[in-house]
Amino acid sequence: MAQTPSYDPRQFRALSFHDARTAFAEGRDTPRAYLERCLETIAEREPVVKAWVNWNPAPGRAAADESTARWKAGRPLSPIDGMPIGIKDLLETFDFPTEMGCDAMKGNFPKRDNIAVHALREAGAVILGKVTTAELGGSHPPATTNPFDPARTAGGSSSGSAAAVGARMIPAAIGSQVGGSIIRPAAYCGNFALKPTQGAINRGERQATSQSTHGPHAGTLEDMWQVAIEIAKRAGGDRGFMALSGPDAPPAPAPLGRVIVLETEGWPEIDAATRSAFEALVDSLAAAGVEIIRRRDHPLVEALEQAIAQGRALCGAITAFENRWYQSNLIREHGNGVSERARTIVEKAMKMTVPEYEALLVERRIAQTRHKALAGVADAVLTLSCPGPAPLWGGDVPGEPLKPRPTGDFVFNAPSSMLFAPSVTMPMLGVGGLPVGVQLVGQQHEDARMVAHARWLTATVEPVVG
Amino acid sequence: MAQTPSYDPRQFRALSFHDARTAFAEGRDTPRAYLERCLETIAEREPVVKAWVNWNPAPGRAAADESTARWKAGRPLSPIDGMPIGIKDLLETFDFPTEMGCDAMKGNFPKRDNIAVHALREAGAVILGKVTTAELGGSHPPATTNPFDPARTAGGSSSGSAAAVGARMIPAAIGSQVGGSIIRPAAYCGNFALKPTQGAINRGERQATSQSTHGPHAGTLEDMWQVAIEIAKRAGGDRGFMALSGPDAPPAPAPLGRVIVLETEGWPEIDAATRSAFEALVDSLAAAGVEIIRRRDHPLVEALEQAIAQGRALCGAITAFENRWYQSNLIREHGNGVSERARTIVEKAMKMTVPEYEALLVERRIAQTRHKALAGVADAVLTLSCPGPAPLWGGDVPGEPLKPRPTGDFVFNAPSSMLFAPSVTMPMLGVGGLPVGVQLVGQQHEDARMVAHARWLTATVEPVVG
Repeated sequence: MAQTPSYDPRQFRALSFHDARTAFAEGRDTPRAYLERCLETIAEREPVVKAWVNWNPAPGRAAADESTARWKAGRPLSPIDGMPIGIKDLLETFDFPTEMGCDAMKGNFPKRDNIAVHALREAGAVILGKVTTAELGGSHPPATTNPFDPARTAGGSSSGSAAAVGARMIPAAIGSQVGGSIIRPAAYCGNFALKPTQGAINRGERQATSQSTHGPHAGTLEDMWQVAIEIAKRAGGDRGFMALSGPDAPPAPAPLGRVIVLETEGWPEIDAATRSAFEALVDSLAAAGVEIIRRRDHPLVEALEQAIAQGRALCGAITAFENRWYQSNLIREHGNGVSERARTIVEKAMKMTVPEYEALLVERRIAQTRHKALAGVADAVLTLSCPGPAPLWGGDVPGEPLKPRPTGDFVFNAPSSMLFAPSVTMPMLGVGGLPVGVQLVGQQHEDARMVAHARWLTATVEPVVG
Repeated sequence: MAQTPSYDPRQFRALSFHDARTAFAEGRDTPRAYLERCLETIAEREPVVKAWVNWNPAPGRAAADESTARWKAGRPLSPIDGMPIGIKDLLETFDFPTEMGCDAMKGNFPKRDNIAVHALREAGAVILGKVTTAELGGSHPPATTNPFDPARTAGGSSSGSAAAVGARMIPAAIGSQVGGSIIRPAAYCGNFALKPTQGAINRGERQATSQSTHGPHAGTLEDMWQVAIEIAKRAGGDRGFMALSGPDAPPAPAPLGRVIVLETEGWPEIDAATRSAFEALVDSLAAAGVEIIRRRDHPLVEALEQAIAQGRALCGAITAFENRWYQSNLIREHGNGVSERARTIVEKAMKMTVPEYEALLVERRIAQTRHKALAGVADAVLTLSCPGPAPLWGGDVPGEPLKPRPTGDFVFNAPSSMLFAPSVTMPMLGVGGLPVGVQLVGQQHEDARMVAHARWLTATVEPVVG
């Protein structure tokens, strides 16, 4: 069994599919060989990391062979033809069950592809199988461990997506986020990831809640963008929404002129080492000529800080209310097949009234208005992607109260979720030998622009080790 | 077998549950006895009308007995406690399969309630079973016939909902509309019906397309409102949307001051008898003191007419694009289990691009802006609910091309659908012994106000026989 590596953001080299393409085109490498290297890493790391739930190398190998033939013929279907990908186990795939990390869903096997999965197959990607999710996309954790310390969580709910990419098993995976389920686990596991503008990547059968999104985790910004745009080109956005749009290739790096540093309600909760690493990064940006704007510098920034100051509670309550119907059905049908953690949330949500829910929707719109007011003030918002390194997680103790937030705290993720805003997380900090991400948050539909700024930022300033 | 009655809107008396409540409270009648009368009518009319697909009197009788006990105890759960209701077979019910009028869905039985069904049960309503739908909510028709002429369609896709209410089998039913699937069949079958503001009645698992809604068909405006508000109070709106709101009892009649008569693209297609009946109704309103505003009278009305002039094609293309993914999956899985009529639409939709779809979304928003601009100009829009009486339908002829629009033309329904606007249809015209509806269309979230105006209109002017 492999030793778990310690994490240094200056040293760590994630898998890149983007960089392998030239070798495919020149016949020095093949998608099948690439896949075999992935499978070797999975064999090595999976016993400890536990990122996968239902998967099978055989159809993956067949798909990789077909891709190899296309590259040999000089006719790949897309830039991600042959890319091995894992799919979060909330999304349906025709060849694997969709069990959602929930006992009540065991054996659920609708035998159809989520539209993103279908789009990926059309682009030639190799769907290797399903990666773990916290139960029903909530907070009750799967067995997955952090690829840089098995005593810690990989985050959630896209636990397997983040861990598989962080462990270099695959170059990219699909995750989903309602409150913080893409950006937080990605930040804990050293991934890049995109939480797109609300509605910009078609969720297919999972038009589940008013602020949920699907998005890619990847080892590189290039693969992250390429996966996102290949899906959006084929599947469009959600019904009634504009799709992610941008160039066919990764957007060219674009310098940041002005950046708003947002504290969010998470500021008092971060540890000293994380705070000092983050401030060192901000100093590097300032040294690179970026104007830094904070809440004390601009009344509209202060107003946004106040509008998101209850973001965690707001996202939690809106989502619990929106999920209460299908989850209470599931509980009625399967009882203890749903965790106590989830049942407690449903019980609380059942007591909410429609007007209470609607009042929260209005608060959310007001926060979005405050964010939009900043469109001309800066190029992007910069903040942490998580309050520090992934927390330790040893499981609940029978007989004791459930431990809170086993997959970590989404306090830094609630803002972009409730603002319907695109967020790109970058593995720019190492704290105590573990990854901590920082994110750029843009205005709605500035996804491509955030990727361009992220490419510039990662090329311009050094990651910080704290 | 019963004779099919001819229709005279001045004579026809639909079932009312609202009017029976006093007798329940006073012990002169019971929900169980009410149900038995419904079952007698079903036994009499169903062999020809064919409104039902999966249903069972036994659980209905048990539910009616429980309701009877509550009324006796003076503790009904709501004003619709004991009301027998049919559910369109697109919505899930835990006790009946959900087959969607589609061979490929035969035996589909998820054993859970759509949120509207659950809300109705909480309010004490008697869920008698499933009523027919055109295939997948499209246009391929079920066997249902028009309750006033079995040679004619009941309309669609809420064919069974409209026919069961029109045949006096039940006082109310739940339908759904994307283009015209509530208002048109209701208009062909002498129903009142509400197509609510987009998002105002929670669709539960059926958050399927960007302009679909659930709404009640009923014999009276009072029952129509009561069903809608009892659902909305318990289930709220769609995720992220404001719910239908209004008084617990039917909104008090409110006089119309000014009304916009909208032609829509259907104007050239209506027959002479229908046109003259409609104009006679408009004359009656004018005689009652209502100011009538037409396209020639106001440039903003003319601008709206132009913005909806391609409404039928726009609604058709948006909906086909939004459905193409799940329907092409269904075709891949079940092939001929999906009708040729539906397959043709999916094939066409597969050729659309994401930007083509997005261009239509923008046209829809522009039309909505033009409609909103009229908010201060009039109290409501008045127009036909269908281009004339229900058309004859004798089935497709094998070997010949499929006949177009077997459930009738949604040309008068596309506007309120694409405008996301509430529409109330009223059975105010009789043309050639058949019902023809007229509708009041309001601004978004004016559902209750349209009901108030409809109560005033139906109490103030006589129905017209042409």
